[in-house]
Amino acid sequence: MEFPLVFMFTLSAMVFLVSGERSTYIVHMDKSFMPNAFSHHTHWYSSIVDSLKLVSRTSNGQHQNPPNLVYTYDNAFHGFSAVLSKQELKTLKKSPGFVSAYSDRVVTLDTTHTFEFLSLNPATGLWPAAEYGKDVIVGVIDTGVWPESLSYNDDGMEDIPARWKGICEEGQEFKASLCNKKLIGVRYFNKGLIATNPNITLSMNSGRDTQGHGTHTSSTVAGNYIEGASVLGYASGTARGMAPRAHVAMYKVIWDEGRYASDVLAGMDQAVADGVDVISISMGFDGVPLYQDPIAIASFGAMEKGVIVSSSAGNEHDIGSLHNGIPWVLTVAAGSIDRSFAGTLTLGNGLSTKGWTRFPAPALVKDAPLIYNKTISSCDSTNALSSVGYGIVICENGSFSEQLLYVSQSKAIAGIFISDEIFEGSIVNFPGVVISTEDASLLINYVTKSAKPVASIKFQQTFFGAKPAPVVASYTSRGPAPSYPSVLKPDVMAPGTNVLASWIPDTEIAYIGNIALTSDYIMISGTSMACPHAAGIAALLKGAHPEWSPAAIRSAMITTASPFDNTEHYILDSGLDNEIATPLAMGAGQVNPNGALNPGLIYDASPQDYINLLCSMNFTQQQITTITRSKYTCSNPSSDLNYPSFIALYTNGTTKLVQKFQRTVTNVGDGAATYKVKVTAPEGSIVNVYPTTLVFGEKYQCLSYTVTISYQGNSSGAITFGSLIWVEDNGKYTVRSPIVVSPMITTW
Amino acid sequence: MEFPLVFMFTLSAMVFLVSGERSTYIVHMDKSFMPNAFSHHTHWYSSIVDSLKLVSRTSNGQHQNPPNLVYTYDNAFHGFSAVLSKQELKTLKKSPGFVSAYSDRVVTLDTTHTFEFLSLNPATGLWPAAEYGKDVIVGVIDTGVWPESLSYNDDGMEDIPARWKGICEEGQEFKASLCNKKLIGVRYFNKGLIATNPNITLSMNSGRDTQGHGTHTSSTVAGNYIEGASVLGYASGTARGMAPRAHVAMYKVIWDEGRYASDVLAGMDQAVADGVDVISISMGFDGVPLYQDPIAIASFGAMEKGVIVSSSAGNEHDIGSLHNGIPWVLTVAAGSIDRSFAGTLTLGNGLSTKGWTRFPAPALVKDAPLIYNKTISSCDSTNALSSVGYGIVICENGSFSEQLLYVSQSKAIAGIFISDEIFEGSIVNFPGVVISTEDASLLINYVTKSAKPVASIKFQQTFFGAKPAPVVASYTSRGPAPSYPSVLKPDVMAPGTNVLASWIPDTEIAYIGNIALTSDYIMISGTSMACPHAAGIAALLKGAHPEWSPAAIRSAMITTASPFDNTEHYILDSGLDNEIATPLAMGAGQVNPNGALNPGLIYDASPQDYINLLCSMNFTQQQITTITRSKYTCSNPSSDLNYPSFIALYTNGTTKLVQKFQRTVTNVGDGAATYKVKVTAPEGSIVNVYPTTLVFGEKYQCLSYTVTISYQGNSSGAITFGSLIWVEDNGKYTVRSPIVVSPMITTW
Repeated sequence: MEFPLVFMFTLSAMVFLVSGERSTYIVHMDKSFMPNAFSHHTHWYSSIVDSLKLVSRTSNGQHQNPPNLVYTYDNAFHGFSAVLSKQELKTLKKSPGFVSAYSDRVVTLDTTHTFEFLSLNPATGLWPAAEYGKDVIVGVIDTGVWPESLSYNDDGMEDIPARWKGICEEGQEFKASLCNKKLIGVRYFNKGLIATNPNITLSMNSGRDTQGHGTHTSSTVAGNYIEGASVLGYASGTARGMAPRAHVAMYKVIWDEGRYASDVLAGMDQAVADGVDVISISMGFDGVPLYQDPIAIASFGAMEKGVIVSSSAGNEHDIGSLHNGIPWVLTVAAGSIDRSFAGTLTLGNGLSTKGWTRFPAPALVKDAPLIYNKTISSCDSTNALSSVGYGIVICENGSFSEQLLYVSQSKAIAGIFISDEIFEGSIVNFPGVVISTEDASLLINYVTKSAKPVASIKFQQTFFGAKPAPVVASYTSRGPAPSYPSVLKPDVMAPGTNVLASWIPDTEIAYIGNIALTSDYIMISGTSMACPHAAGIAALLKGAHPEWSPAAIRSAMITTASPFDNTEHYILDSGLDNEIATPLAMGAGQVNPNGALNPGLIYDASPQDYINLLCSMNFTQQQITTITRSKYTCSNPSSDLNYPSFIALYTNGTTKLVQKFQRTVTNVGDGAATYKVKVTAPEGSIVNVYPTTLVFGEKYQCLSYTVTISYQGNSSGAITFGSLIWVEDNGKYTVRSPIVVSPMITTW
Repeated sequence: MEFPLVFMFTLSAMVFLVSGERSTYIVHMDKSFMPNAFSHHTHWYSSIVDSLKLVSRTSNGQHQNPPNLVYTYDNAFHGFSAVLSKQELKTLKKSPGFVSAYSDRVVTLDTTHTFEFLSLNPATGLWPAAEYGKDVIVGVIDTGVWPESLSYNDDGMEDIPARWKGICEEGQEFKASLCNKKLIGVRYFNKGLIATNPNITLSMNSGRDTQGHGTHTSSTVAGNYIEGASVLGYASGTARGMAPRAHVAMYKVIWDEGRYASDVLAGMDQAVADGVDVISISMGFDGVPLYQDPIAIASFGAMEKGVIVSSSAGNEHDIGSLHNGIPWVLTVAAGSIDRSFAGTLTLGNGLSTKGWTRFPAPALVKDAPLIYNKTISSCDSTNALSSVGYGIVICENGSFSEQLLYVSQSKAIAGIFISDEIFEGSIVNFPGVVISTEDASLLINYVTKSAKPVASIKFQQTFFGAKPAPVVASYTSRGPAPSYPSVLKPDVMAPGTNVLASWIPDTEIAYIGNIALTSDYIMISGTSMACPHAAGIAALLKGAHPEWSPAAIRSAMITTASPFDNTEHYILDSGLDNEIATPLAMGAGQVNPNGALNPGLIYDASPQDYINLLCSMNFTQQQITTITRSKYTCSNPSSDLNYPSFIALYTNGTTKLVQKFQRTVTNVGDGAATYKVKVTAPEGSIVNVYPTTLVFGEKYQCLSYTVTISYQGNSSGAITFGSLIWVEDNGKYTVRSPIVVSPMITTW
């Protein structure tokens, strides 16, 4: 981790808090059952909950806490949440229109600690085509926002779109006047939290962010330009979101005191009602099937209204640990960038080397004596270091944080720590730099042979052009998706490691000695940071192509993503011993905003296509209705969604698997075009495509093809992968789909 | 002082270092005596020095160190410097063409510690009119330059003017490739230093700055734009020089090992030869008459070639302490600006107050317990503070630096120090804030009445709009000028206090605990900082009016300077108990760049006018020739220089003084114009002007008028002052001259 405090985002295991025997339940209703007597769904739901009161009174003859309506939902889905006893729930289930109900649950945020960066080009491509996200509204479901952050200044912003129905909700330390043309809406949702914890005192009962996560994600997706941003001297430069001219609306659903699905649902529901174009949600629910996953449920309604939802894959690392594996959302993995932060150690003989450090100030360490001898070099006691005077102590063979502590208490002005450990995220509260044992040989050679060895150290160094980059982050959760493994997830990878964005300025992020330091910006890591990058790119695509469906936007991002890094080799996976990354780690590859502007072909999908998919699953009608609400027909169930990727799952022991896929592509290029297929088959599989040439006579024409993957089983349980690329004859478009053959996993 | 290390600029008393019996002498020659046999002045001077060798050998028959030519000078003046014995000097004086010789001397830099700022407007006025100094070359005579500073990046710079003859001299840690279109020339001059100290080892034998002063002044005069500059979090914003598109040439003449007039002369001489348009020289020689003042001498030659020299008034505070009181240069006083730096203390009850601090990091002090009781509040011992735990200690009735030390060694996380002292420049290496006894009453009231008093402190706060501003800096040296008191000096005031500019990055400027910190920028104070502001404005005026003489540029700056501050009252003098400042402190007032662009009338002066002035002084012909070189005639001696200000000097005990001045003004307005005079007479004096109306028929017409100051003596020795303003009938131009009646001072 980079800075200790962001550990607050590390998820504890899911904990269901209940208050006495009562719990909060999220209840899905089929609105077509609403009696005509009710002019508004709220009345109907109130009436239902009221009727339960009577039931509960009669049932035991005693006075008890009445059932309590928490939220009503009408946009992402139909229903409500309410605090109910088990008996009341039982009664409720008999109500006409009842679809399903499940307990409120705790949600997880995706953040670990490191940094990141992604650039778009003002001269050409998606930024100018989308006018930097002008007129697009991004809703962020998160921990709230620090409205005074410079990311939310509205310099250069256009007026708020007339269609916007949101508000700037007042609350604790939050006046409505804090909204502007950049931060156009703020709402907060804590009824679910309070319902479960009725006596709770909220530390900040408003949309104000007390954790930093929401400030970070929302400034990443659409923060305005800020010149001279840096994290205590590292990574200094101009900060801005992916879509710097898009409008932001924050829906605070995460609280210091708890995180509840009912609040998440309420936030997403309201975002859709308010008129957002894109939702960015950097959190996920683990271990729940689609029909119990609030994000899956709410994003279905969003998708139906044309709102694309970008979500984070999770930070659980393991194969099959991915959350938000929802066929109708964009699921984003995290990768590294080509920037690194370091100190530079320069020896008196002129040789210099980069070392790792995060000392947060420009300490002066210049031509200072190097102190190295075997009696003190373990740097593990005050006694050993008591002889040390002015100079730089060289420490080896020990624990960095322990050695740093001892050196900082000595009279040394700095320390050099020889170690091959990875220290990303350690606190460096004293001028110290870590160098590898390999680099240390020069140092030791110099210090032992020179009569008066000296060295200088520069801190707050930022380097660009690190290679290879991107590399898949070790923490990013891998597919297949336990929610529905037959759609390849994640979809794409975006920068998630060491992302600099705005932060809440009243919390410590570093130390010098014992003095805690704050910053308006922070660099943190996680799929939480990757998700808003993808959401921002989706916002730009929405701005450039307002007519594109959520599936079209996602298709453009998938088929143009790059499997190559900046060394022109395949992207490696730092969670897989730096072997070549599989699509289960990064989807189609690193998201490519400018490529996605003109994808050539798109794989579209309508709400009905997703219903057909749901119909093919082993779900009950109630379970499906929970997702789709009332309006669905299973006339054409199909597990073969028109998705721009392919995954064939075999069970271990299988010796042969033949899986056939049907796909339809829409020509979104300039006009007539001919495409030829180019297939790289996964090892051990044969891939047949028919036809191998697609001849489009005009724009928007749709053509179909089939893919047959014939897997020759082996017993290793190996994940193999390849690709299918439609190449336009003039080389203008390359439409790439990853192919994966993977062992089946246990589903949720 | 602000930061301790800049004390390196505080001048020790003048020390003349000599090596044995030999000294370096600066020798002025009349070049018209050069025999035709010599094709170049260098040969002539070499021949003269060589001839002295023979003399010295014959004189005592023993081998001794031969006389040694150090520099030859041919631009600012004619002559050379050489290491000579007294005997050799005596012989030299008999050489044909010899004018004068004087010992090399030590030069003083003008810097104390504080900050500053001055803005010009990109929309209108001098910046756009001068195209930000495009095509103008400023030569800076100083301690060298840190070429890697972002101030010298050449983004956006035009090509180097073809007339430029300078070079980028290589040297220690300085390659010629470090020059570019911004930093177009670097030369260094240390022969005078070495001549006097032959065995010296130079710590940095090149144009590289090891002190920071030259980097600061040259970036102030013409540094390029740098976004995101700050001094460890204070004053953050965009840094740039006054003339951000002007070219800079650095002439390093000041060394860690010494400062010699011969080197200063060599630098100025070369600057003129190289083709600079403006010279900025933030140093001065104390206690020397004009004919022994290297800056007076070199700037005369510069002036003749149309080069305006801006110089600093000095930091000696006292009446009559001003140096660079040279009639043909611009002499600049220092004032404050309207920006302040502070911490904000916010009490648990919501009340907040500004306090003074320079803690150099964003320390987190939020809602921490306030600790106040009489047994520890003197904060003067480890013992007293041993009971203190987590919280903010309140200290009173003691020494800030001592209390800070004790508090920093306790377990407190911060300190509040109640004091009315002025702490500008103190080191604040622990989170502490100083509040006045007046502001402290709220704090003490709260802390004694609240059960659980808490407070928060924010550091690195920058405030704008301080009033009044400018205020004359207490340190700025006051006139009259001991060099020549009958010309009013200083000429104008420019920002000199707390000026942020670039700095050398390898020296400590602050501390956190015992950890020394560096910065690429610093805020320091002094007339050294005011001088380059005026030089930058002069460069802009040169760009806007290439035809103007140095006197015309200075006249425009003087007659448009403002005697008013931002409260629309007269500027006050912090060195005079905040009474109204006299022109002896600030000249005509705060320099007004946009006003100076169109002054209406100018008071011009030619080289001959200055010669006439010199002829009126009690100087020998040799002394005058030292300044003017060979070509002068005293046909029309006049002590009444055509200067845009008036000073009448009386000797104490005088009861009546009548002094008459003749002035000629040139109409540089658009065409015909009528001006009427408006006089505010100094108290106790009558001022008569004739005529009282000036009617100009056309542009460039010159008209003359006379001023008679009749002083009615009193015995107080008071300095009285007023003004004479020519007001154009349409109110378009206001041409203001300060008038001073002052006791005579002892001259140098």
